[in-house]
Amino acid sequence: MGEFKKKIKLISRDLKYKGTIMNIYDDTVEVDGNVTHWDYMNKCDAAAVVPVLPNGNIVMVRQYRLAVDRWTLEIPAGKLDGDEEFLTCATRELEEESGYKSDNIEFLCDTYTAAAFCSEIVRIFVATNLIKGKQHFDRDEELVTEEWSLEDLKKEIYSGNIKDGKTISGIMTYAAKYNK
Amino acid sequence: MGEFKKKIKLISRDLKYKGTIMNIYDDTVEVDGNVTHWDYMNKCDAAAVVPVLPNGNIVMVRQYRLAVDRWTLEIPAGKLDGDEEFLTCATRELEEESGYKSDNIEFLCDTYTAAAFCSEIVRIFVATNLIKGKQHFDRDEELVTEEWSLEDLKKEIYSGNIKDGKTISGIMTYAAKYNK
Repeated sequence: MGEFKKKIKLISRDLKYKGTIMNIYDDTVEVDGNVTHWDYMNKCDAAAVVPVLPNGNIVMVRQYRLAVDRWTLEIPAGKLDGDEEFLTCATRELEEESGYKSDNIEFLCDTYTAAAFCSEIVRIFVATNLIKGKQHFDRDEELVTEEWSLEDLKKEIYSGNIKDGKTISGIMTYAAKYNK
Repeated sequence: MGEFKKKIKLISRDLKYKGTIMNIYDDTVEVDGNVTHWDYMNKCDAAAVVPVLPNGNIVMVRQYRLAVDRWTLEIPAGKLDGDEEFLTCATRELEEESGYKSDNIEFLCDTYTAAAFCSEIVRIFVATNLIKGKQHFDRDEELVTEEWSLEDLKKEIYSGNIKDGKTISGIMTYAAKYNK
Protein backbone atom coordinates (compact mmCIF):
# COMPACT_ATOMS: atom_id res chain seq x y z
CA MET A 1 0.00 0.00 0.00
CA GLY A 2 3.01 2.24 -0.53
CA GLU A 3 1.12 4.35 -3.05
CA PHE A 4 -0.97 6.07 -0.43
CA LYS A 5 -0.14 9.72 -0.18
CA LYS A 6 -1.68 10.14 3.25
CA LYS A 7 -0.38 8.15 6.18
CA ILE A 8 -2.50 7.38 9.22
CA LYS A 9 -0.58 7.34 12.49
CA LEU A 10 -2.03 6.88 15.97
CA ILE A 11 -0.36 9.44 18.25
CA SER A 12 -2.24 8.51 21.44
CA ARG A 13 -5.34 6.59 22.58
CA ASP A 14 -6.86 8.12 25.70
CA LEU A 15 -9.55 6.43 27.76
CA LYS A 16 -12.49 8.77 28.20
CA TYR A 17 -15.27 6.58 29.58
CA LYS A 18 -15.60 3.08 30.98
CA GLY A 19 -19.09 1.81 30.33
CA THR A 20 -20.86 -1.42 31.19
CA ILE A 21 -19.89 -3.27 27.98
CA MET A 22 -17.63 -0.77 26.25
CA ASN A 23 -14.70 1.56 26.79
CA ILE A 24 -14.59 4.81 24.84
CA TYR A 25 -11.34 6.42 23.78
CA ASP A 26 -10.26 9.62 22.09
CA ASP A 27 -7.68 8.79 19.44
CA THR A 28 -5.28 11.58 18.52
CA VAL A 29 -4.43 10.71 14.92
CA GLU A 30 -2.01 12.22 12.48
CA VAL A 31 -3.15 12.00 8.87
CA ASP A 32 -0.64 13.27 6.34
CA GLY A 33 0.85 15.58 8.92
CA ASN A 34 -2.51 16.95 10.11
CA VAL A 35 -3.64 16.10 13.62
CA THR A 36 -7.26 15.13 14.17
CA HIS A 37 -9.40 13.31 16.74
CA TRP A 38 -11.31 10.08 16.13
CA ASP A 39 -13.62 8.24 18.50
CA TYR A 40 -12.77 4.62 19.29
CA MET A 41 -14.91 2.07 21.10
CA ASN A 42 -13.35 -1.06 22.49
CA LYS A 43 -15.93 -3.74 23.10
CA CYS A 44 -15.73 -7.49 23.59
CA ASP A 45 -16.60 -9.64 20.60
CA ALA A 46 -19.79 -11.62 20.06
CA ALA A 47 -21.21 -14.62 18.23
CA ALA A 48 -24.47 -15.11 16.36
CA VAL A 49 -26.21 -18.14 14.86
CA VAL A 50 -28.59 -18.82 11.96
CA PRO A 51 -30.54 -21.83 13.34
CA VAL A 52 -32.05 -23.88 10.54
CA LEU A 53 -34.87 -26.34 11.27
CA PRO A 54 -35.29 -29.60 9.32
CA ASN A 55 -38.09 -28.00 7.31
CA GLY A 56 -35.71 -25.23 6.21
CA ASN A 57 -37.28 -22.54 8.39
CA ILE A 58 -35.15 -20.30 10.58
CA VAL A 59 -35.57 -19.79 14.34
CA MET A 60 -35.60 -16.06 15.06
CA VAL A 61 -35.83 -14.08 18.29
CA ARG A 62 -37.95 -11.00 18.89
CA GLN A 63 -37.02 -8.53 21.63
CA TYR A 64 -37.25 -4.89 22.62
CA ARG A 65 -34.11 -2.90 21.86
CA LEU A 66 -33.95 0.30 23.91
CA ALA A 67 -31.15 1.84 21.81
CA VAL A 68 -33.39 1.95 18.74
CA ASP A 69 -36.67 2.01 20.70
CA ARG A 70 -38.09 -0.82 18.62
CA TRP A 71 -39.04 -4.46 18.80
CA THR A 72 -36.58 -6.19 16.51
CA LEU A 73 -36.44 -9.60 14.83
CA GLU A 74 -32.95 -11.03 15.05
CA ILE A 75 -30.92 -14.22 14.89
CA PRO A 76 -29.81 -15.52 18.32
CA ALA A 77 -26.61 -13.85 19.48
CA GLY A 78 -24.63 -12.71 22.48
CA LYS A 79 -21.29 -11.43 23.63
CA LEU A 80 -18.41 -13.66 24.57
CA ASP A 81 -18.37 -14.63 28.21
CA GLY A 82 -14.87 -13.95 29.59
CA ASP A 83 -12.29 -15.60 27.34
CA GLU A 84 -14.84 -17.92 25.78
CA GLU A 85 -14.27 -19.07 22.16
CA PHE A 86 -16.63 -17.87 19.43
CA LEU A 87 -18.03 -21.38 18.85
CA THR A 88 -18.65 -21.96 22.55
CA CYS A 89 -20.50 -18.65 22.73
CA ALA A 90 -22.59 -19.46 19.66
CA THR A 91 -23.49 -22.88 21.05
CA ARG A 92 -24.44 -21.40 24.41
CA GLU A 93 -26.43 -18.45 23.06
CA LEU A 94 -28.27 -20.70 20.60
CA GLU A 95 -29.64 -22.79 23.42
CA GLU A 96 -30.19 -19.95 25.91
CA GLU A 97 -32.09 -17.74 23.45
CA SER A 98 -33.83 -20.17 21.10
CA GLY A 99 -34.16 -23.23 23.28
CA TYR A 100 -32.48 -25.43 20.63
CA LYS A 101 -29.20 -27.31 20.80
CA SER A 102 -27.08 -28.44 17.88
CA ASP A 103 -24.06 -30.64 17.24
CA ASN A 104 -23.55 -29.14 13.80
CA ILE A 105 -22.61 -25.48 14.05
CA GLU A 106 -20.47 -24.21 11.18
CA PHE A 107 -18.68 -20.95 10.47
CA LEU A 108 -20.62 -18.69 8.09
CA CYS A 109 -18.89 -15.27 8.12
CA ASP A 110 -17.24 -12.67 10.34
CA THR A 111 -18.62 -9.16 10.66
CA TYR A 112 -17.08 -5.95 11.91
CA THR A 113 -19.94 -4.18 13.68
CA ALA A 114 -18.59 -0.72 12.74
CA ALA A 115 -15.00 -0.75 11.48
CA ALA A 116 -14.93 3.07 11.41
CA PHE A 117 -14.99 3.36 15.20
CA CYS A 118 -15.45 0.02 16.95
CA SER A 119 -13.24 -3.00 17.60
CA GLU A 120 -16.07 -5.54 17.77
CA ILE A 121 -16.20 -8.66 15.61
CA VAL A 122 -19.39 -10.72 15.53
CA ARG A 123 -18.72 -14.22 14.21
CA ILE A 124 -21.79 -15.74 12.58
CA PHE A 125 -22.47 -19.47 12.38
CA VAL A 126 -25.11 -21.75 10.83
CA ALA A 127 -26.65 -24.42 13.07
CA THR A 128 -28.48 -27.44 11.69
CA ASN A 129 -29.59 -30.74 13.28
CA LEU A 130 -31.47 -28.72 15.88
CA ILE A 131 -32.82 -30.62 18.90
CA LYS A 132 -34.84 -29.28 21.76
CA GLY A 133 -32.77 -27.92 24.65
CA LYS A 134 -33.54 -25.44 27.41
CA GLN A 135 -34.11 -21.73 27.06
CA HIS A 136 -32.49 -19.61 29.73
CA PHE A 137 -32.69 -15.86 29.52
CA ASP A 138 -30.26 -13.44 31.11
CA ARG A 139 -31.71 -11.53 34.04
CA ASP A 140 -32.46 -8.43 31.97
CA GLU A 141 -33.45 -10.25 28.81
CA GLU A 142 -36.81 -11.32 27.45
CA LEU A 143 -37.20 -12.88 24.04
CA VAL A 144 -39.92 -14.50 21.99
CA THR A 145 -38.84 -17.15 19.49
CA GLU A 146 -40.50 -17.28 16.10
CA GLU A 147 -40.16 -19.65 13.17
CA TRP A 148 -39.79 -17.97 9.79
CA SER A 149 -39.37 -19.18 6.22
CA LEU A 150 -36.33 -17.84 4.44
CA GLU A 151 -38.55 -16.33 1.75
CA ASP A 152 -40.53 -14.34 4.28
CA LEU A 153 -37.34 -13.17 6.00
CA LYS A 154 -35.99 -11.94 2.66
CA LYS A 155 -39.20 -9.97 2.06
CA GLU A 156 -38.89 -8.36 5.50
CA ILE A 157 -35.30 -7.36 4.70
CA TYR A 158 -36.20 -5.95 1.26
CA SER A 159 -39.04 -3.92 2.79
CA GLY A 160 -36.84 -2.56 5.58
CA ASN A 161 -38.88 -4.24 8.31
CA ILE A 162 -35.90 -6.31 9.43
CA LYS A 163 -33.04 -3.90 10.09
CA ASP A 164 -30.69 -5.70 12.49
CA GLY A 165 -27.30 -5.65 10.76
CA LYS A 166 -25.86 -8.98 11.90
CA THR A 167 -29.21 -10.62 11.12
CA ILE A 168 -29.23 -9.34 7.53
CA SER A 169 -25.60 -10.39 7.08
CA GLY A 170 -26.31 -13.84 8.52
CA ILE A 171 -29.57 -14.57 6.74
CA MET A 172 -28.41 -13.33 3.33
CA THR A 173 -25.00 -15.00 3.51
CA TYR A 174 -26.68 -18.25 4.52
CA ALA A 175 -29.11 -17.95 1.60
CA ALA A 176 -26.30 -17.36 -0.92
CA LYS A 177 -23.86 -19.95 0.41
CA TYR A 178 -26.40 -22.74 0.74
CA ASN A 179 -28.21 -21.82 -2.50
CA LYS A 180 -31.55 -21.11 -0.85
CA MET B 1 -46.55 -7.85 23.29
CA GLY B 2 -48.55 -7.94 26.51
CA GLU B 3 -47.39 -11.48 27.25
CA PHE B 4 -43.95 -10.39 28.31
CA LYS B 5 -43.36 -10.98 31.96
CA LYS B 6 -40.46 -8.55 32.17
CA LYS B 7 -40.98 -4.91 31.34
CA ILE B 8 -38.15 -2.67 30.20
CA LYS B 9 -38.43 0.90 31.43
CA LEU B 10 -35.91 3.69 30.91
CA ILE B 11 -35.51 5.52 34.23
CA SER B 12 -32.89 8.03 33.07
CA ARG B 13 -30.44 8.61 30.22
CA ASP B 14 -27.32 10.46 31.38
CA LEU B 15 -24.74 11.91 29.03
CA LYS B 16 -21.29 10.65 29.96
CA TYR B 17 -19.09 11.60 27.04
CA LYS B 18 -19.37 13.81 23.95
CA GLY B 19 -17.11 12.43 21.26
CA THR B 20 -16.32 13.59 17.74
CA ILE B 21 -19.08 11.58 16.04
CA MET B 22 -20.92 10.01 18.98
CA ASN B 23 -22.39 10.79 22.37
CA ILE B 24 -22.25 8.12 25.05
CA TYR B 25 -24.91 7.75 27.72
CA ASP B 26 -25.48 5.65 30.79
CA ASP B 27 -29.05 4.37 30.75
CA THR B 28 -30.54 3.50 34.13
CA VAL B 29 -33.06 0.81 33.19
CA GLU B 30 -35.63 -1.04 35.20
CA VAL B 31 -36.25 -4.58 34.03
CA ASP B 32 -39.00 -6.41 35.89
CA GLY B 33 -38.43 -4.26 38.93
CA ASN B 34 -34.64 -4.72 38.91
CA VAL B 35 -32.50 -1.68 38.17
CA THR B 36 -29.52 -2.10 35.86
CA HIS B 37 -27.22 0.03 33.70
CA TRP B 38 -26.93 -0.18 29.93
CA ASP B 39 -24.58 1.73 27.64
CA TYR B 40 -26.16 3.79 24.88
CA MET B 41 -24.42 5.46 21.93
CA ASN B 42 -26.19 8.16 19.98
CA LYS B 43 -24.63 8.63 16.59
CA CYS B 44 -25.83 10.26 13.38
CA ASP B 45 -27.05 7.92 10.66
CA ALA B 46 -25.23 6.98 7.47
CA ALA B 47 -25.78 5.75 3.92
CA ALA B 48 -23.98 3.16 1.84
CA VAL B 49 -24.12 2.12 -1.80
CA VAL B 50 -23.55 -1.05 -3.82
CA PRO B 51 -22.31 0.43 -7.15
CA VAL B 52 -22.88 -1.98 -10.02
CA LEU B 53 -21.01 -1.51 -13.30
CA PRO B 54 -22.54 -2.43 -16.69
CA ASN B 55 -20.48 -5.64 -16.72
CA GLY B 56 -22.05 -6.65 -13.39
CA ASN B 57 -18.92 -6.03 -11.32
CA ILE B 58 -19.06 -4.01 -8.10
CA VAL B 59 -16.96 -0.92 -7.29
CA MET B 60 -15.41 -1.41 -3.84
CA VAL B 61 -13.21 0.85 -1.72
CA ARG B 62 -10.14 -0.23 0.24
CA GLN B 63 -8.98 1.80 3.24
CA TYR B 64 -7.17 1.53 6.55
CA ARG B 65 -9.50 1.31 9.54
CA LEU B 66 -7.71 2.24 12.77
CA ALA B 67 -10.46 0.83 15.03
CA VAL B 68 -9.81 -2.71 13.76
CA ASP B 69 -6.20 -2.04 12.70
CA ARG B 70 -6.79 -3.54 9.28
CA TRP B 71 -7.11 -2.61 5.64
CA THR B 72 -10.72 -3.34 4.80
CA LEU B 73 -12.66 -3.79 1.56
CA GLU B 74 -16.01 -2.02 1.77
CA ILE B 75 -18.83 -0.55 -0.27
CA PRO B 76 -18.77 3.27 -0.48
CA ALA B 77 -20.43 4.86 2.53
CA GLY B 78 -20.47 7.86 4.81
CA LYS B 79 -22.41 9.62 7.52
CA LEU B 80 -25.18 12.07 6.87
CA ASP B 81 -24.01 15.65 6.53
CA GLY B 82 -26.16 17.83 8.80
CA ASP B 83 -29.85 17.14 8.09
CA GLU B 84 -29.10 15.58 4.72
CA GLU B 85 -31.47 12.89 3.41
CA PHE B 86 -30.23 9.31 3.10
CA LEU B 87 -30.44 9.35 -0.71
CA THR B 88 -28.56 12.64 -0.96
CA CYS B 89 -25.83 11.22 1.25
CA ALA B 90 -25.61 8.02 -0.79
CA THR B 91 -25.39 9.99 -4.04
CA ARG B 92 -22.69 12.25 -2.63
CA GLU B 93 -20.60 9.50 -1.02
CA LEU B 94 -20.81 7.35 -4.15
CA GLU B 95 -19.16 10.06 -6.20
CA GLU B 96 -16.72 11.26 -3.54
CA GLU B 97 -15.42 7.78 -2.70
CA SER B 98 -15.73 5.82 -5.94
CA GLY B 99 -15.54 8.56 -8.52
CA TYR B 100 -18.80 7.39 -10.15
CA LYS B 101 -22.12 9.19 -10.45
CA SER B 102 -25.51 7.60 -10.99
CA ASP B 103 -29.05 8.68 -11.78
CA ASN B 104 -30.45 5.32 -10.73
CA ILE B 105 -29.93 4.77 -7.00
CA GLU B 106 -32.54 2.52 -5.38
CA PHE B 107 -33.26 1.49 -1.80
CA LEU B 108 -31.89 -1.95 -0.92
CA CYS B 109 -32.19 -2.36 2.87
CA ASP B 110 -31.80 -0.59 6.21
CA THR B 111 -29.35 -1.80 8.83
CA TYR B 112 -29.07 -1.11 12.54
CA THR B 113 -25.32 -1.00 13.18
CA ALA B 114 -25.75 -2.42 16.70
CA ALA B 115 -29.30 -2.36 18.01
CA ALA B 116 -28.14 -3.54 21.44
CA PHE B 117 -26.40 -0.25 22.20
CA CYS B 118 -26.38 2.17 19.27
CA SER B 119 -28.98 4.36 17.58
CA GLU B 120 -27.34 4.34 14.16
CA ILE B 121 -29.16 3.29 10.99
CA VAL B 122 -27.18 2.77 7.80
CA ARG B 123 -29.45 2.84 4.75
CA ILE B 124 -28.03 0.83 1.87
CA PHE B 125 -28.77 1.53 -1.78
CA VAL B 126 -27.94 -0.05 -5.15
CA ALA B 127 -26.58 2.24 -7.89
CA THR B 128 -26.60 1.29 -11.56
CA ASN B 129 -26.08 3.33 -14.75
CA LEU B 130 -22.73 4.45 -13.36
CA ILE B 131 -20.95 7.27 -15.20
CA LYS B 132 -17.59 8.77 -14.43
CA GLY B 133 -17.68 11.66 -11.95
CA LYS B 134 -15.05 13.14 -9.65
CA GLN B 135 -13.49 11.52 -6.60
CA HIS B 136 -13.06 13.83 -3.64
CA PHE B 137 -11.75 12.47 -0.39
CA ASP B 138 -12.36 13.99 3.02
CA ARG B 139 -9.26 15.57 4.53
CA ASP B 140 -8.50 12.54 6.71
CA GLU B 141 -9.58 9.91 4.21
CA GLU B 142 -7.64 7.92 1.64
CA LEU B 143 -9.25 5.20 -0.40
CA VAL B 144 -8.34 2.93 -3.28
CA THR B 145 -11.16 1.84 -5.57
CA GLU B 146 -11.23 -1.73 -6.86
CA GLU B 147 -13.53 -3.52 -9.26
CA TRP B 148 -14.69 -6.94 -8.07
CA SER B 149 -16.93 -9.63 -9.50
CA LEU B 150 -19.82 -10.63 -7.27
CA GLU B 151 -18.58 -14.23 -7.22
CA ASP B 152 -15.18 -13.20 -5.92
CA LEU B 153 -16.77 -10.95 -3.29
CA LYS B 154 -18.91 -13.87 -2.08
CA LYS B 155 -15.80 -16.05 -1.76
CA GLU B 156 -14.09 -13.34 0.30
CA ILE B 157 -17.13 -13.17 2.59
CA TYR B 158 -17.36 -16.97 2.98
CA SER B 159 -13.66 -17.14 3.84
CA GLY B 160 -13.89 -14.32 6.39
CA ASN B 161 -11.58 -12.03 4.41
CA ILE B 162 -14.31 -9.44 3.96
CA LYS B 163 -15.65 -8.62 7.43
CA ASP B 164 -17.23 -5.17 7.12
CA GLY B 165 -20.82 -5.61 8.35
CA LYS B 166 -22.65 -3.13 6.13
CA THR B 167 -20.68 -4.44 3.14
CA ILE B 168 -21.74 -8.04 3.76
CA SER B 169 -25.36 -6.95 4.29
CA GLY B 170 -25.29 -4.86 1.10
CA ILE B 171 -23.50 -7.32 -1.18
CA MET B 172 -25.50 -10.36 -0.06
CA THR B 173 -28.87 -8.59 -0.10
CA TYR B 174 -28.09 -7.27 -3.58
CA ALA B 175 -27.15 -10.78 -4.75
CA ALA B 176 -30.39 -12.28 -3.40
CA LYS B 177 -32.76 -9.52 -4.50
CA TYR B 178 -31.39 -9.23 -8.02
CA ASN B 179 -30.91 -13.01 -8.43
CA LYS B 180 -27.15 -12.84 -8.97
